[in-house]
Amino acid sequence: MISYDDALQKVLENTDVLEMEEKPFFQCIGQVSAEDVHADINLPQSDISGPDGYAVRSADIKGAGRLSPVTLKIIETVRAGCLPRKKVVPGTAARIMTGSVISDGADCVVRFEDTDEPPDKNGPNTTKPAEVKIYVTLGAGANIRGAGSNIREGFPVVPGGTLIGPTRISALASIGRATLKVVRRPVIAVIATGDELVSVGKPLSPGKSYNSNTAAIASLVAHYGGIPKIMGIARDRELSLFKKIREGAKIADGIITSGGVSKGDYDLVRLVLGKIGEVVFSRIKMGPGAAVAFGMISGSSTGRHSSIPVFGLAGPPPGCLVNFETLVRPFLLKMRGIAALNHPVVEAIAMDSVPGRMPMAFVRFTYLRKRERKYHVTLNGVEKIGALASMATANSLTIVPEGSTIEAGDRVAVLPLDWSMGEI
Amino acid sequence: MISYDDALQKVLENTDVLEMEEKPFFQCIGQVSAEDVHADINLPQSDISGPDGYAVRSADIKGAGRLSPVTLKIIETVRAGCLPRKKVVPGTAARIMTGSVISDGADCVVRFEDTDEPPDKNGPNTTKPAEVKIYVTLGAGANIRGAGSNIREGFPVVPGGTLIGPTRISALASIGRATLKVVRRPVIAVIATGDELVSVGKPLSPGKSYNSNTAAIASLVAHYGGIPKIMGIARDRELSLFKKIREGAKIADGIITSGGVSKGDYDLVRLVLGKIGEVVFSRIKMGPGAAVAFGMISGSSTGRHSSIPVFGLAGPPPGCLVNFETLVRPFLLKMRGIAALNHPVVEAIAMDSVPGRMPMAFVRFTYLRKRERKYHVTLNGVEKIGALASMATANSLTIVPEGSTIEAGDRVAVLPLDWSMGEI
Repeated sequence: MISYDDALQKVLENTDVLEMEEKPFFQCIGQVSAEDVHADINLPQSDISGPDGYAVRSADIKGAGRLSPVTLKIIETVRAGCLPRKKVVPGTAARIMTGSVISDGADCVVRFEDTDEPPDKNGPNTTKPAEVKIYVTLGAGANIRGAGSNIREGFPVVPGGTLIGPTRISALASIGRATLKVVRRPVIAVIATGDELVSVGKPLSPGKSYNSNTAAIASLVAHYGGIPKIMGIARDRELSLFKKIREGAKIADGIITSGGVSKGDYDLVRLVLGKIGEVVFSRIKMGPGAAVAFGMISGSSTGRHSSIPVFGLAGPPPGCLVNFETLVRPFLLKMRGIAALNHPVVEAIAMDSVPGRMPMAFVRFTYLRKRERKYHVTLNGVEKIGALASMATANSLTIVPEGSTIEAGDRVAVLPLDWSMGEI
Repeated sequence: MISYDDALQKVLENTDVLEMEEKPFFQCIGQVSAEDVHADINLPQSDISGPDGYAVRSADIKGAGRLSPVTLKIIETVRAGCLPRKKVVPGTAARIMTGSVISDGADCVVRFEDTDEPPDKNGPNTTKPAEVKIYVTLGAGANIRGAGSNIREGFPVVPGGTLIGPTRISALASIGRATLKVVRRPVIAVIATGDELVSVGKPLSPGKSYNSNTAAIASLVAHYGGIPKIMGIARDRELSLFKKIREGAKIADGIITSGGVSKGDYDLVRLVLGKIGEVVFSRIKMGPGAAVAFGMISGSSTGRHSSIPVFGLAGPPPGCLVNFETLVRPFLLKMRGIAALNHPVVEAIAMDSVPGRMPMAFVRFTYLRKRERKYHVTLNGVEKIGALASMATANSLTIVPEGSTIEAGDRVAVLPLDWSMGEI
């Protein structure tokens, strides 16, 4: 039996960042970049107009105002995506649209609002004016967005190790990057164990239980950026479990079993792990799920790894979920190349008390709410509605340290379960 | 020009929660339940053993201890998933595995640790004992988990309106629910507009820009639980835009365009919206992206709606993204049936100053970090690295109210962009 911290360290020592793959950039959301991407162009490429208006020579409009307009001859209309064809010479202006390249000769842009352009029009100016009245004096550079003012050539748009979100996708597109090298997503084989398990959708005879861990683990794997592969239920015979684990090793970067890790006659996960590989740790000093085991087995000749981590999670769903959040989550994130492995944590005020001192750290399924900018956490669910019901309705975990109590009003560290974060 | 609050209200007034669909329960992650699911069984179904051990009569082990063991005859082994066949009578015990149904006659379970079972064995006890020595005195009920102690029959496992996360999936599986009625995911047509746009992967001639908004909007739609349908680029002609919008109306629950909403001659979104529907608002008092438009058009005869919302987002990516986060995000969440529409917000200490008072609320792309349990926000990115670069590297938005300044050290409200939340 080792401490949770030691267990986590052993997991991470046995976890490598996966190799990279190159993909269309828009498919890289949620993956971590495996290359440095710098802008190879300025954005905008050249000086462009900020607003819709007129490109003019600032010298021509010196002294212009509402009561003393300057009238200029319109030489052409420059639209975004087309280059100006004519030069702005003294006494002239180019009608210019947002984002268009500034005409030679012009050194500033007058917004439509500062001219005699009809206000509140939508779409083209159907009067096709030949002249424009300017109502404002501007300095050189006014309303011009310089080349590189959005992104300068050489800017690290996506440094290696960046988690790709929508704004990085936007920036990659802006500089025309069609593909990106990213760390591959981990593939995880999910195996349930136990003769008592029945698949959802089938009738439940007395003494049997529905297999709930497979669906929960698969959804957690996907939530944390992995690709779950459901391998079905291994029955409580060595050969059945051995076969499922071997099948998993052919296709996966990690294997997760649930159940079969306590001390019973048919708890075979440790036994099989020890026979075909190495049990790295067995049982940790934190519950529920203290019976969790972790080992390494040799990879398949057709697989991608010489050795593959195997998590033997607890069978009862609350222990299984605690094992996942505390041990499998950092494992998945590390394989994905994510640097921030610590679980997000907030400080909350306890709304009730946990009186019993436990001989080991104990994780409670708790309910977190934000009220008047402070978090409040309700600790006691299990006692009132039962273990599974408390887990189902929880939006956070609170770890009660070994031998500790929590009193109502205490400040405690709470781990939000981020799939319900928006509702806290 | 209306305030942001009024604009949001108008968007939500024109947004309905989508109809429900029934799906396999494990595919419902991230969707909101459209029915109340109560447990129709107790979990466990009957009294079961907590640990691996021996089911005994508490009367038989009265006074037992390490130095005064009681020896009982083992009548059978009860394993999870199988029912006991024999009754525990005085002087006998049933070897019993975690989760197994308690034998008739027994009223408590003695853990292996409190018997002469060999410690630290993995898997079966190969000695096949005929008797067991009990080293502990227990009361009736000890180590028995009662019927319904995990979930009681009738418990609301998934109330209507619940966002389905992994723990709800686990609970649904536990009670054997194979399908669930959930609010359908919104389908969103994504249209870029502009003659200047070039698709990523093609060469960029002078004056042109890559279409970055389509990829960014599509990834944001997916991030907030919608299904994006990319309709391509509408060119700056009424007919081109009209056709794309009509195509979108046939398949989508909402349409998002980007670009073509400022005051230029080729900004046709408002014009087309006004011709084929109603412009609900046009321009809001918050930038960047103040030129955003919102309207309703009539649905297609083959579509699902009599009228369909159309967002005309700003063309420049920073404005487009701000429009999305502040107007489209709550729209998507409301359609999905999510009640919590407010953007998550944290209080942070400003690391630098925003001196300029703007005539309208202005949204800055900012960088949030947590240090020693407090959030700190760096406000000035645009000025240093450019608008797009600042957006790409931001992990939060900070709204500077109309006419306000922010001084270093001020406490400000910051909206985390949650796709990078784990890295703050």
